[in-house]
Amino acid sequence: MNATLQPTREGDVLLAREAPFRLEAGGSLQPVSIRYAIYGELNERRDNAVLICHALSGSTRAADWWPEMFDSVFDLSRDCVICTNMLGSCYGSTGPTSVNPATGQPYGPDFPLVSVRDMVRAQTQVLDQLGVSRLRIVIGASIGGMQALQWTVDYPERVEHCVAIGAAPLSAMGLALNHLQRQAIRLDPKFNGGKYASGEQPRGGLGLARAIAMCSYKSAELFDERYARKPNRNGEDPVRSFDHRYDVAGYLDYQGEKFVQRFDANAYIVISKAMDTFDLAHGYVSEAEALQRIRAHVSLVGITSDWLFPPEDVRALAERIEAAGAACDYTEFESSHGHDGFLAEVDAIAAVVSGRFRARRLALVRNQPRVVCS
Amino acid sequence: MNATLQPTREGDVLLAREAPFRLEAGGSLQPVSIRYAIYGELNERRDNAVLICHALSGSTRAADWWPEMFDSVFDLSRDCVICTNMLGSCYGSTGPTSVNPATGQPYGPDFPLVSVRDMVRAQTQVLDQLGVSRLRIVIGASIGGMQALQWTVDYPERVEHCVAIGAAPLSAMGLALNHLQRQAIRLDPKFNGGKYASGEQPRGGLGLARAIAMCSYKSAELFDERYARKPNRNGEDPVRSFDHRYDVAGYLDYQGEKFVQRFDANAYIVISKAMDTFDLAHGYVSEAEALQRIRAHVSLVGITSDWLFPPEDVRALAERIEAAGAACDYTEFESSHGHDGFLAEVDAIAAVVSGRFRARRLALVRNQPRVVCS
Repeated sequence: MNATLQPTREGDVLLAREAPFRLEAGGSLQPVSIRYAIYGELNERRDNAVLICHALSGSTRAADWWPEMFDSVFDLSRDCVICTNMLGSCYGSTGPTSVNPATGQPYGPDFPLVSVRDMVRAQTQVLDQLGVSRLRIVIGASIGGMQALQWTVDYPERVEHCVAIGAAPLSAMGLALNHLQRQAIRLDPKFNGGKYASGEQPRGGLGLARAIAMCSYKSAELFDERYARKPNRNGEDPVRSFDHRYDVAGYLDYQGEKFVQRFDANAYIVISKAMDTFDLAHGYVSEAEALQRIRAHVSLVGITSDWLFPPEDVRALAERIEAAGAACDYTEFESSHGHDGFLAEVDAIAAVVSGRFRARRLALVRNQPRVVCS
Repeated sequence: MNATLQPTREGDVLLAREAPFRLEAGGSLQPVSIRYAIYGELNERRDNAVLICHALSGSTRAADWWPEMFDSVFDLSRDCVICTNMLGSCYGSTGPTSVNPATGQPYGPDFPLVSVRDMVRAQTQVLDQLGVSRLRIVIGASIGGMQALQWTVDYPERVEHCVAIGAAPLSAMGLALNHLQRQAIRLDPKFNGGKYASGEQPRGGLGLARAIAMCSYKSAELFDERYARKPNRNGEDPVRSFDHRYDVAGYLDYQGEKFVQRFDANAYIVISKAMDTFDLAHGYVSEAEALQRIRAHVSLVGITSDWLFPPEDVRALAERIEAAGAACDYTEFESSHGHDGFLAEVDAIAAVVSGRFRARRLALVRNQPRVVCS
């Protein structure tokens, strides 16, 4: 195994130095700092930039969490891959763990409600400072895919190709699952309305939120393949004791425990809420009017076993984009990996990015053999 | 609307007066009291008894929670419908809210682990005292269906027809969802390891557990039909405020709040755990050996949109029962109601109970038009 690929350059871009960064929901932030990482180099014409938009708990270090993309999709001798940490996160950009200049203390629960549009507007200002006016590709999955789509609507002249995987406005079930996760965090007395000290996170509540989320990121099929009805691995006997677990329960608890060591509960709430409110119609008369603005070629990807963003919802969005007159293709990955399939099915993503993109204006891929992933 | 049908008779049967009621997982209870309700009358030959096994939060008052069954499936001029409250519940039978004679205090978290087999064994002793040696029908959904199936294996001579709806050994996803619900209860500081005073329930935790469960009882399709992305009904604006909810979130919170007024957190844990451990192989060499004991005609019902007990799992169980040489039919209800479809699709259940039963030994219903419910 090679050492993880390191960025060519990384740093922080400071925005809203002179005027507040106004947010869609009404609040504002000043200043705003956005962390970025760049892999490869911008060419002289500055037309080789690829923007990766990370998902809920991702960071700018795309090669750490999506390494296969650098093996088989992007070629750093040609592409300049940029990844910015989303506004509201806890991995370097301004978020609830950042110091609120008005109080000298971390924002915590006073951090304002940000939207996917706000996140993307911050990204555009970062790219302005990096000298990138147009993206060859903007790509992301989940809330990263929402951002990629928002780019095509709000900044149509700045995007050539958008690839959004497992992304669409959340369905009622998705809204329900996100709500339950936030309620789990709030239930933990250590959350204390978001006013917990650094290092004194609501571990139980955030861990439970992550465990609920993991169920929505995976699939019943995958859980059955991996865990079935096996007892947990430490010799637990779930048939005999309330305290003993099945294997899948041990897995979920472990995922929750790992997560609280690396993520902030207030940031989780902020980002999960931004995922909820994503709606391309916001700021326009209608979704149709918004979609008519698109000039990029849009590739949407659904995953058969994704029940957080069901493939039907992604396909329906692709149909609305096409109906609005934009170039759009839709590919469905046959995968048991659920929503997290975007991390597993990189060969299929490579086919979408490289193959499809070359062909440009493609009809919606309907009733054709699905791209079957190994 | 007519007044709800009242039982002909109801009461409590005391078991284990002289010797402890030994439990499969190793504990024991003494005494055990089981609440029952009877609708209609036993005939002279005592061969018209129907046993309804209720689901997790049900009670003996089957006409309250499954009234349509009394309109269109059972005829009280012919049938004697009996419903017993399951061991471990909080609706009259011995459970965590009952007084532990060893301490004079409610059992609370000291209530032992009970299994579906234990529940059914207690039922048989109740029926012995009521003078019912054989059931014309045993019917139930969810953990009620598990009990109905357990009857056919453990007491093959006592059951003529078993109807189990949305019931099979839980898949890994089902085990995961049950675990998360128990973790939600435990996360609430008011749970206090199960040692809360009566009336001081862990409302937040039990409410969240119920809300998670409601997602698993319904379907994404139903949620989209009913709630879509609408804001909550009290003029909330989820796009502008962290505290404002979407309609589906308001619905789930409401369901949670209602539930804590009527159910006990320790009982919830006991029953949810019994659902986890259900496995017809327990006590036998293998599941196949257990299934070979069946003498009843078994009708299994899957619901297309049920993702807690996916129809594939119910169908697979039907195939294993048939392979073991027992008479079994499988019907799949086309319904968007999810696991709770058993409450909604009573006409279809009537078809299974009356139509199929008359025909007795039926082939598995495969590759045929599904029973489509209005």
